Amino acid sequence: MASIVKSALPLSASTLSYWASSSTVRALPRHAITSTSRGYRAGAGAGAGAGTARSKWTPMGAAVGVIAGVAVYQLATFSDPERNVIESKAAPPAEDGWTQALGDWKPPPRLHPDDPSLPARTRMANLVYSFQNHIISALEHAEGPNGARFYRDTWKRPNGEGGGVSAVLSEGKTFEKAGVLVSVIEGNLSKEAAMQMKSRGRDFGPAAVDGLRFFAAGLSSVIHPRNPHAPTAHLNYRYFEVSDKTGKVLSSWYGGGADLTPIYLYPEDATHFHSVLKSACDKHNPEYYPKFKKWADKYFWNTHREEGRGVGGIFFDDLDPPAPGTGDRDAVFRFVETCGSNFPAGYLPIVQKRKDTKFTEEEKRWQQLRRGRYVEFNLIHDRGTKFGLATPGARIESILVSMPLTARWEYMHKTKPGTRERQLEDALKNPQEWV
Amino acid sequence: MASIVKSALPLSASTLSYWASSSTVRALPRHAITSTSRGYRAGAGAGAGAGTARSKWTPMGAAVGVIAGVAVYQLATFSDPERNVIESKAAPPAEDGWTQALGDWKPPPRLHPDDPSLPARTRMANLVYSFQNHIISALEHAEGPNGARFYRDTWKRPNGEGGGVSAVLSEGKTFEKAGVLVSVIEGNLSKEAAMQMKSRGRDFGPAAVDGLRFFAAGLSSVIHPRNPHAPTAHLNYRYFEVSDKTGKVLSSWYGGGADLTPIYLYPEDATHFHSVLKSACDKHNPEYYPKFKKWADKYFWNTHREEGRGVGGIFFDDLDPPAPGTGDRDAVFRFVETCGSNFPAGYLPIVQKRKDTKFTEEEKRWQQLRRGRYVEFNLIHDRGTKFGLATPGARIESILVSMPLTARWEYMHKTKPGTRERQLEDALKNPQEWV
Repeated sequence: MASIVKSALPLSASTLSYWASSSTVRALPRHAITSTSRGYRAGAGAGAGAGTARSKWTPMGAAVGVIAGVAVYQLATFSDPERNVIESKAAPPAEDGWTQALGDWKPPPRLHPDDPSLPARTRMANLVYSFQNHIISALEHAEGPNGARFYRDTWKRPNGEGGGVSAVLSEGKTFEKAGVLVSVIEGNLSKEAAMQMKSRGRDFGPAAVDGLRFFAAGLSSVIHPRNPHAPTAHLNYRYFEVSDKTGKVLSSWYGGGADLTPIYLYPEDATHFHSVLKSACDKHNPEYYPKFKKWADKYFWNTHREEGRGVGGIFFDDLDPPAPGTGDRDAVFRFVETCGSNFPAGYLPIVQKRKDTKFTEEEKRWQQLRRGRYVEFNLIHDRGTKFGLATPGARIESILVSMPLTARWEYMHKTKPGTRERQLEDALKNPQEWV
Repeated sequence: MASIVKSALPLSASTLSYWASSSTVRALPRHAITSTSRGYRAGAGAGAGAGTARSKWTPMGAAVGVIAGVAVYQLATFSDPERNVIESKAAPPAEDGWTQALGDWKPPPRLHPDDPSLPARTRMANLVYSFQNHIISALEHAEGPNGARFYRDTWKRPNGEGGGVSAVLSEGKTFEKAGVLVSVIEGNLSKEAAMQMKSRGRDFGPAAVDGLRFFAAGLSSVIHPRNPHAPTAHLNYRYFEVSDKTGKVLSSWYGGGADLTPIYLYPEDATHFHSVLKSACDKHNPEYYPKFKKWADKYFWNTHREEGRGVGGIFFDDLDPPAPGTGDRDAVFRFVETCGSNFPAGYLPIVQKRKDTKFTEEEKRWQQLRRGRYVEFNLIHDRGTKFGLATPGARIESILVSMPLTARWEYMHKTKPGTRERQLEDALKNPQEWV
């Protein structure tokens, strides 16, 4: 299988010449994250870009100039979205994964390189905005020069409790709909939520369960291609912190994952997607991939249909940095960094390979029926969606951006034995090892 | 408003000549309900038709001949579905509502007239199958002579615990998709379900909460027209019984309702739909309509969108017959009978009026977006759907037949002030009195 993948999906390091050339990229808007007394540093992002990145900025709502392909979001200022077209002359970033090539796609430099001296929450906020820019670049590349572009929407929570950027592409040449969302928020942790966390084993020490605060930084993305031979993909990486009233962090953890949902099964695609995930996992802990792969098979299971949402991927939660002084506090962060930054390498080659496959009306209809199953999973089972929809004041449009553009339900639709539709069904009902 | 309705939706009693003529109707299949020691009477339905109705039948799986427009389902025999085309020469039934006319629609005679000497469960089973036949006839009439026809699917639960008939029409001229479902089932009541019922006030006397049995007979229907100017409609009427191990009924109650979901608001349509419901309610109890109308506004509320699913209707639950000897035990049954049998009078004139309205691509797209909201309500909030999906061994295809054929989600879709789309949104966000 590995050799098929190799020939089917050549990944060459053909981007070397890119870093010396210039290309136009569009800046992310200035972001909407509140400065707080617990870890944000005003202007921490500005001027600390990759090599040549420089930003002029003024605090609190003034215009932020963005130079050199680095769209600086910084944690002290707010305003409505801006979309600048700028020249990129940045040097290549050093982080693992960002330079992995995909045909002629030229990955953008990381928005804001990691700085280990910053608090974990700021580093993760930096990381998820970089993921967003990275994925958007890859998907817009797959759209082609005349394809659709992402619409970016900056939002903020009231009372300075953070915000995010929702980037959505709709009705493109390659993608029916794709959402790449960042949220970096904080607030009071409800007693119920704190109790739930405790009940699943989170330890907040002797602190009372009321009066706690939370911080969450996450990226989530769902991508629905137009061609029924190109699979839907999803990824989500998030960091969560619980603090006491003084701002002291009592508990922090990472979670996330990525999974692939084919409409027609190409085993080599599933193998490639899983291979990239396994390789990312193996770099950090050989136990991760087998464990998180199983977890994904269990999590992305459409219980009421008794079938998987797709061919799986990885899923994990409650992944804690070791207690201070007992190990490498950065290891989990770096694992998440590798996973997220490798996503385009795992997904884009598949899209490039399948996006122009000829398809019939019947195949499109099958795709729409499978989209219906995706809707069912998201609205009935997905814990993140359920939690979001039940949260008063939640941003519904961001939560439901995972919905496909269109979906279909037919009563008692049955696949026929020996067809490619049945082949997919069989694969969904019987999760398998892809690498 | 009433005068507008009158002129917009003329309801004439033009069916008088129908009963002397013959027309072809298709029989419901023989049904899959187990004979039990607690109320079913083998062959109770056969030969007891409306006037001229007669059936030849043999028990347990043999063919059931169906004559005179009365598709006899009877509670002792089983088999796979049959679809007979038969001549209808039945006399008009006497029940209130069944003879209400809708233009040139000729309502079929009731499948099986009510017999007050039968147990409540059998009477309700008879009633819901009659509702089904009645509604199917009305919808097929709206499809026209060359339109789509319902596909009927008989199913049964294992261990002789009842079954039902799912009738579905898909991709018709008038309707994109319509489901009219009956289920008549029984089984052991889980302790959890019994506790839940008790917690909302149901009284089972001194019986232990484990070892109880349940019986449920219900009809539910969701109808999605093709034309965006024709509204979606839903109705559900059900009867529930809890018995002890000896078969003694400890508690029984009725529930149900109907609601209308326009894509474009025609206030006169909403008024007509509500008028028919109010009139049905008022015949039985003047407090019903105001109370059940409010209940519908609350129940059919898409919480996460902060808007109604549609313009409401009625909703009720836990409507008990009075204790033996304290009042008219039949009153609630007759109320449900009136509501259900008046449904075509409330809905079909609207469909007939709107089904050929010219519409644009943009209007179709708006319909598809509203279908998305319908999906959200059903999968996220609807208690029946949630209960069904969480029930092991439930018949998923029947539960999800309420899904539209197709639906659409666009990120941050906004209606413009002054448009008909905004007019609908305003109406959904502010429930109003229609009669």
